[in-house]
Amino acid sequence: MGEPAGIGGEILIKAALAARARHLPTFFAIDDPERLRALADQMGARVSIEPIAAPGDVAGLPEGTLGVLPLENPVEAVPGRPSATTAPQVIRSIETAVALARRGAACGIITNPIQKSVLYEAGFEHPGHTEYLGHLLRPAQPPVMMLAIEGLKVVPVTVHLPLSAVAGSLRIESILLTAKTVLGALARDFAIPKPRLAVAALNPHAGEGGALGPEEGKIIQPAVAALRALGHDVRGPYPADTLFHAGARETYDAALCMYHDQALIPLKTLDFERGVNITLGLSIVRTSPDHGTALDIAGTGQASAESLIAAIETAASIARNRRAAP
Amino acid sequence: MGEPAGIGGEILIKAALAARARHLPTFFAIDDPERLRALADQMGARVSIEPIAAPGDVAGLPEGTLGVLPLENPVEAVPGRPSATTAPQVIRSIETAVALARRGAACGIITNPIQKSVLYEAGFEHPGHTEYLGHLLRPAQPPVMMLAIEGLKVVPVTVHLPLSAVAGSLRIESILLTAKTVLGALARDFAIPKPRLAVAALNPHAGEGGALGPEEGKIIQPAVAALRALGHDVRGPYPADTLFHAGARETYDAALCMYHDQALIPLKTLDFERGVNITLGLSIVRTSPDHGTALDIAGTGQASAESLIAAIETAASIARNRRAAP
Repeated sequence: MGEPAGIGGEILIKAALAARARHLPTFFAIDDPERLRALADQMGARVSIEPIAAPGDVAGLPEGTLGVLPLENPVEAVPGRPSATTAPQVIRSIETAVALARRGAACGIITNPIQKSVLYEAGFEHPGHTEYLGHLLRPAQPPVMMLAIEGLKVVPVTVHLPLSAVAGSLRIESILLTAKTVLGALARDFAIPKPRLAVAALNPHAGEGGALGPEEGKIIQPAVAALRALGHDVRGPYPADTLFHAGARETYDAALCMYHDQALIPLKTLDFERGVNITLGLSIVRTSPDHGTALDIAGTGQASAESLIAAIETAASIARNRRAAP
Repeated sequence: MGEPAGIGGEILIKAALAARARHLPTFFAIDDPERLRALADQMGARVSIEPIAAPGDVAGLPEGTLGVLPLENPVEAVPGRPSATTAPQVIRSIETAVALARRGAACGIITNPIQKSVLYEAGFEHPGHTEYLGHLLRPAQPPVMMLAIEGLKVVPVTVHLPLSAVAGSLRIESILLTAKTVLGALARDFAIPKPRLAVAALNPHAGEGGALGPEEGKIIQPAVAALRALGHDVRGPYPADTLFHAGARETYDAALCMYHDQALIPLKTLDFERGVNITLGLSIVRTSPDHGTALDIAGTGQASAESLIAAIETAASIARNRRAAP
């Protein structure tokens, strides 16, 4: 469901409408069917919305029907006005999805955007989806956020930090941990037997031999060397401005970036609509559209479903690859 | 000329070969004609190279001929091996170009890449071309580096700094100075009567109201407000990852960035071959290809002339706009 006052419901309905023509994998919602029906009516969307009692019931629905596993109570939300009163239902939707995926009743979960400020008011204590899933699933290593579009996968080693704190937060160990999770996921989730990881430098011109910063020599190069010594195809650090053009993108399967905007600028410059957020290193498959709740346009029917559609396709693809993995 | 052991000569010859078919504006080289002839022979390039005594002589040359204003002495260079012995000639070529442009004998100058390390050995004391031109021309304000491709112009406020030093180096005053030079150049050099400047944030998510860094609120927003109070169409700070996709690029004429890679990542991601470096705020017109001397491929004939060709076209376009300006 995600935040019910945001665009989640609209893009879900648009994805359901597109499901047949675009051959989307089977998916169902965890939400309030009445809320989604009202939303579809308001959008003039000709989609049939049917409550289901269990995930398996989706198979029996007529083509073009969106199956909805109902939350316990009706969800009452005003587009553009998130309220703490729906926060328990937002959290319940995530918990239900995780539980279904854990017991194999769903092959993965796709989370619509949440409004963190509202969840905090209701006592939610995690910085975001990724950390909450880490809390629910307790993986051996911290989960890692990957952003993907067609032809480019990026992973930031540091994420939500002020730019001034980035250099001081980089550690050889955190680069190693992140890189290993990424390499494992490229092999298992993306079926790339010998994954190639390119590592971005932190400083302009990759530090110009130390003249423009010490981090390449002291932190990034030793991390790359340690990964290569383990037999991984890891290269860099490369000047970040030369790492994302079409020719460069062909030389690696994912780019490990040192900070948020270094990863997100090239990705969103190339494709602003279809980015997918993927959580690596979890026992279950989890993807998400790479945008927020877009409260400013919620209820207008304007929101694009492309990122959600890509997230649904990516989740199914990862699940297939995991099933096929040795 | 630029560094004679680099790819400058090759791309110059390629540009001369392309001049007729691509309707390039008239240009001439300041170099050693014998060196260029030997290079053209080696490349199997059918281009006629003729010494000229003065810029005006170019008009009398047959179509397809590259006019060369000779340096005083022969230039002896080995591709890939820059030497301090040619450094005085590299500097002389720049000085001659500047002098010709100052007295109107040329409408602008295009500088091929130089090898700074070799110039330093010979006693050159400037960090690069831009600063050297500032030294020669003494503009009222420091010159500003713009990078441009079709559909995107970017200007970094800080340039060659370690990433860890960027936040501490930002000042309201330096943003104002840089923005004013850019706005003036957009009007005069690019013939945009009401230029629109978009300003990038420093921190991820534009600092999220201070949670991810104070610089937006303390430095960038006040600078934007001051520029708007002067009547300029300046907007921001915008999260940098949402500023460079196709839709966003249509909303401004140039993007003011806070650091090197923030400006260069989107530009080189979108077009790695055709970037042009433009020095704003000088009395003369100066452009340059946006790449280095490429010593590793010098002499092989592989280097692309696209960036140099774009630099020649851009210089001519700026000169035309300056002549037409009120």
